[in-house]
Amino acid sequence: MSKGKLFVISGPSGTGKGTICKELLSRSDSMRLSISMTTRGPREGEVHGVHYFFAERDEFISLINEGGFIEYADVYGNFYGTPKKQVEAWLDDGDDVLLEIDVQGAIQVKKNYPDSVLIFVLPPSIKVLRERLEGRGTDSAQVIEKRMGGALGEISLIGEYDYSVVNDNLEEAVEAVEAVIRVEHLKLTGESAEEIAGRYRQEV
Amino acid sequence: MSKGKLFVISGPSGTGKGTICKELLSRSDSMRLSISMTTRGPREGEVHGVHYFFAERDEFISLINEGGFIEYADVYGNFYGTPKKQVEAWLDDGDDVLLEIDVQGAIQVKKNYPDSVLIFVLPPSIKVLRERLEGRGTDSAQVIEKRMGGALGEISLIGEYDYSVVNDNLEEAVEAVEAVIRVEHLKLTGESAEEIAGRYRQEV
Repeated sequence: MSKGKLFVISGPSGTGKGTICKELLSRSDSMRLSISMTTRGPREGEVHGVHYFFAERDEFISLINEGGFIEYADVYGNFYGTPKKQVEAWLDDGDDVLLEIDVQGAIQVKKNYPDSVLIFVLPPSIKVLRERLEGRGTDSAQVIEKRMGGALGEISLIGEYDYSVVNDNLEEAVEAVEAVIRVEHLKLTGESAEEIAGRYRQEV
Repeated sequence: MSKGKLFVISGPSGTGKGTICKELLSRSDSMRLSISMTTRGPREGEVHGVHYFFAERDEFISLINEGGFIEYADVYGNFYGTPKKQVEAWLDDGDDVLLEIDVQGAIQVKKNYPDSVLIFVLPPSIKVLRERLEGRGTDSAQVIEKRMGGALGEISLIGEYDYSVVNDNLEEAVEAVEAVIRVEHLKLTGESAEEIAGRYRQEV
């Protein structure tokens, strides 16, 4: 059985990447979502093992020292990271794995897993992104300004990604990402080409 | 407007690549099929400008000397080739172009157009391929043996291709190739990434 593939989805806050990931998972039996580990405390409604694995600082640091993360970052004093063990077990089982992480994390993943596939979700425009953030009504004007600045910073790093998908219409965006996943499995590598040619040769 | 992309479809005789190409063309307004030029005479039912452009030997050779072919080959004394002019005009107009050519031609195209996308259509198995060729009832046993040998030779060169699609079910195979075409347009290059980032920056 062939190994699964690692798909990374990033994009500015408000582009709907979380909704896209949820849809991808609900439509596929062979796609797994990696849950991040963090040292920050749980917020209202967040469940351990669903939204995050909540960990003590010591625990997180020893996992770093064991090389136990695919990627991790220190964000304003809190650690966030993708534990390696579960992801590699899924890949070995032939399942695809989805990581919803930020641009810095995505760049680390690509470095450590050159075969990983990086997908950047874009808003239709900066104007629409601002309208969406304002429409959510959860962020103050100041937080929205910060997010808008962050969005442009992230978009400026889009060249690190393999594919971009504009989320203008959710259904179309999900189908575009599904197409990327499907097509990545049709891609030939030196190894897969040799395996395929060998299979047909053997038949004769 | 962005340029179109060049898609090459190859595969052994009997894999249904011609039917796949026909379906792709009927389902898309922005996909063009390149017509090959040949020096062999037309067979019964073949129409100039539909199946081939039939040309005199002198004419073909002067076009070779002008660098007027994307790829060409001498097959048992007859020339076959893809004229460059029309294909480049379509690409410049932003249309995608489909070439249904053999493995040797595909390798030449990739060399001259590194951004071209090579798709290899595989039969489900050697056994099924043989059944399909026998089922057509158009080839003698000897021709079928020759085609089977040719098929294995072509499959052994699958590593030169970007993608492989197994044609077990026509509809699924067409959808797989359509997904490849769609996803190739989502692919980021240094140039397209800079263009996208610039577009969002300008909006602010």
